[in-house]
Amino acid sequence: MTTVDLNADMGESFGPWKMGDDAALLRVVTSANIACGGHAGDADVMAATMRMAHENGVGIGAHPGFMDLAGFGRNRMAVPRGTLRNQIRYQVAASVGMARSVGAEVRHLKLHGALANMASEDEGLARDLYEAALSVAPDLIVMVLAATAQERAVKSLGCKWAGEIFADRPYNDDATLVDRSKPGAVIHDASTAAARMVEMVKAGAIITESGKHIPTRIDTICLHGDTTEAVQIATAVRKGLQDGGVTLAKFGGSV
Amino acid sequence: MTTVDLNADMGESFGPWKMGDDAALLRVVTSANIACGGHAGDADVMAATMRMAHENGVGIGAHPGFMDLAGFGRNRMAVPRGTLRNQIRYQVAASVGMARSVGAEVRHLKLHGALANMASEDEGLARDLYEAALSVAPDLIVMVLAATAQERAVKSLGCKWAGEIFADRPYNDDATLVDRSKPGAVIHDASTAAARMVEMVKAGAIITESGKHIPTRIDTICLHGDTTEAVQIATAVRKGLQDGGVTLAKFGGSV
Amino acid sequence: MTTVDLNADMGESFGPWKMGDDAALLRVVTSANIACGGHAGDADVMAATMRMAHENGVGIGAHPGFMDLAGFGRNRMAVPRGTLRNQIRYQVAASVGMARSVGAEVRHLKLHGALANMASEDEGLARDLYEAALSVAPDLIVMVLAATAQERAVKSLGCKWAGEIFADRPYNDDATLVDRSKPGAVIHDASTAAARMVEMVKAGAIITESGKHIPTRIDTICLHGDTTEAVQIATAVRKGLQDGGVTLAKFGGSV
Amino acid sequence: MTTVDLNADMGESFGPWKMGDDAALLRVVTSANIACGGHAGDADVMAATMRMAHENGVGIGAHPGFMDLAGFGRNRMAVPRGTLRNQIRYQVAASVGMARSVGAEVRHLKLHGALANMASEDEGLARDLYEAALSVAPDLIVMVLAATAQERAVKSLGCKWAGEIFADRPYNDDATLVDRSKPGAVIHDASTAAARMVEMVKAGAIITESGKHIPTRIDTICLHGDTTEAVQIATAVRKGLQDGGVTLAKFGGSV
Repeated sequence: MTTVDLNADMGESFGPWKMGDDAALLRVVTSANIACGGHAGDADVMAATMRMAHENGVGIGAHPGFMDLAGFGRNRMAVPRGTLRNQIRYQVAASVGMARSVGAEVRHLKLHGALANMASEDEGLARDLYEAALSVAPDLIVMVLAATAQERAVKSLGCKWAGEIFADRPYNDDATLVDRSKPGAVIHDASTAAARMVEMVKAGAIITESGKHIPTRIDTICLHGDTTEAVQIATAVRKGLQDGGVTLAKFGGSV
Repeated sequence: MTTVDLNADMGESFGPWKMGDDAALLRVVTSANIACGGHAGDADVMAATMRMAHENGVGIGAHPGFMDLAGFGRNRMAVPRGTLRNQIRYQVAASVGMARSVGAEVRHLKLHGALANMASEDEGLARDLYEAALSVAPDLIVMVLAATAQERAVKSLGCKWAGEIFADRPYNDDATLVDRSKPGAVIHDASTAAARMVEMVKAGAIITESGKHIPTRIDTICLHGDTTEAVQIATAVRKGLQDGGVTLAKFGGSV
Repeated sequence: MTTVDLNADMGESFGPWKMGDDAALLRVVTSANIACGGHAGDADVMAATMRMAHENGVGIGAHPGFMDLAGFGRNRMAVPRGTLRNQIRYQVAASVGMARSVGAEVRHLKLHGALANMASEDEGLARDLYEAALSVAPDLIVMVLAATAQERAVKSLGCKWAGEIFADRPYNDDATLVDRSKPGAVIHDASTAAARMVEMVKAGAIITESGKHIPTRIDTICLHGDTTEAVQIATAVRKGLQDGGVTLAKFGGSV
Repeated sequence: MTTVDLNADMGESFGPWKMGDDAALLRVVTSANIACGGHAGDADVMAATMRMAHENGVGIGAHPGFMDLAGFGRNRMAVPRGTLRNQIRYQVAASVGMARSVGAEVRHLKLHGALANMASEDEGLARDLYEAALSVAPDLIVMVLAATAQERAVKSLGCKWAGEIFADRPYNDDATLVDRSKPGAVIHDASTAAARMVEMVKAGAIITESGKHIPTRIDTICLHGDTTEAVQIATAVRKGLQDGGVTLAKFGGSV
């Protein structure tokens, strides 16, 4: 039986400002990456999103990023390493305790935005940040961008992890994503996206644009839900995977 | 044997800005109320202060307040109750996890600033906030302003608590503090402050300006450390208590 | 000829978060109250909104509030008066200079949210805040809630002002708004709202629920645009006013 | 007659947190670079610092930086260029209006921290940011790090400018500062610093560690005042310059 997890970012509203349709998305995914108040989210949003995820049987993940609300954690910042580690601790800690207070539990960690991009290029950074998160919650399953420096970091740490691929982004032969500036860099057709995912999950490999197979552990597929269209695509990808014989379930997070 | 705890607020630096001499203060007190990033403190400051407190054998407390850095949590704010509860959850959660990540533990809770003042006047508010904190960390010892609505709230909740009096502030006959605008409302002489404390701790009562005794549980004495002078007074009060035959130790926090 | 201005709040997006359809709203109103980075808005949002307002020939106003993004300026805060005055100066200054940098000009001032509510009840507060704003830009036209302490404040200051009424809210006999908790406290029907406005503008008076006339200067009508439905209502009210023979134009702001 | 200006950063307190002794420093310098609420400063601090500078006859400058209070504008950030330009506009606008409201005037602009460093390496960035500032206040004198990309930017813009050198930092032969990690990279002796300054100002050139002369316009000397020791050094440098026959006065800012 081929099984995979579906994950999406959520809990990214802030104060009076809404982002995404988390309620709809929670009916699609099996794991939710919930913002921790660093790049998005506030105490109300975290509590409500975690409660909703828990009620839907969706796994809860901490989703920390640069502490830059105005920039939504999308700008690279040269924050000193020790400070960055403490900021990860702070955000993960807030998530873990907030989850407990609503009767739920944080199962996994996924880095957000520019910080995730930097960690996918720099194994030392990734390891430092994961270690900081694990110092707060040693049983966290670390979600990594498959076949990047993030994956090398979890392997060298020996912690539980889950490998992630993107539903809507084609890959280069070195396992990086095709640059957004190129034509076809984002797949907008749900059936195409679903078919690719079925193929990759069954192959146990990233299949690049050129057709090359890069064997890797595929535990979870990243979906987007920040727009109404995105939720529709996510729903269609889910159906496509099920129709293709793939079982959807929370990842286990083996070492 | 008469025993009492000494507590002080610390960890109130932020980014490049320093406040107080926490290292000195940690040699005086037995419990530290450490800011959680709401009214003061950041991830670096929290981690460093908790580490230092732990190394000095000082008990660590979460010290949440209004999430208003610019106002240092000193301005009363009409934040909706549910939001306020979530903000307390968030701050306590961040503290609890940060402490764990440095090998320490959060033992107690103390409200900060305007929020503490409001809770000392409003039992329902105090109970709501304490309940929110306890939903994150059920074993917290709640530090309350003795003989106020805060004390009534912990009694009605049935949680562990510690009663606090002020070393440097005289009391009115209704257990409120003499207003700062009145002469003598702040005691600047350490030996006077220490003598008062010895008397009150031994009497098991707040002794008001008029000499009235208000029996209450005195588990801890609040010292200030935001200035060099304040640390000197705190040190002198500590010595005065010891000379008066009072043993200094972390409170136990009985129900 | 009966003339009135239509105003709405806008520029209330922040970072990645959108609020309202400002482009649509700018085709309806004649004056725009643009957030200054205190309760909402950021440098990009301010620049873009001001540019758009200017291109549409819409008058630009500074719309300062409590500096509380997370609470959107909706929570009353006990900020010291001097600090509040400086915060108003800061926000108005930012608006005035930003407008200049895009080739436009700030014509008016309108207080936002909880701060506006407080100023409508407290003439001294209103005057202090208006005075602070005028110390930055002496020619500002101050928009006031007609027949409240705000109006008394501008009269005592002797500055230029414009009186405002609400399109969608019925009035009590003391010129306050009917409490939101009561049935009918918000008028959702655009033709009803428009008919009321035509009547009041022509009468030169607030007409209360009971039919009482409170004579006052009506220079501008407040519309809302935070939802798609709100923009539709605003559009319909505009049309209703024009059909009722009322000319729409920016207020002049006489003393 | 040889004349030079002395400048220092100030107004970098925030909320309850104090930084530097601005009152003392204002008796030393002739120009003050005052934070704008981006990396430091708030409305109260800006108003008070500007008022004090004005009373002391010290020239007021806007000192904008990355909008990152927690990092004090010291971390490089990959903020999109357009956003950065608007953030400069916002901060300069706030300064200009705040100065007017206290009866003073903003004469010059100086970039802060990491943003200043980046602009000293990248002429295009420097020009974009200066242009943004000048769009708010066209008469600003732009203070530049002498003989860097900042100087090239003002020359290409054709605006008024003032060239700055550091009192306490030796120079490499390419006009960059000797790296802080090297021995002697910060000059702690005031008489040494003063003697160097007298020599350079009279020579009209940066004199490097190796003795090389790099001719440049020296209009102002940067002093530091963030510690008590720093203020003492600044005072001594001022005296050394006067004793060396150099007149101290605000720069004129020729094109």
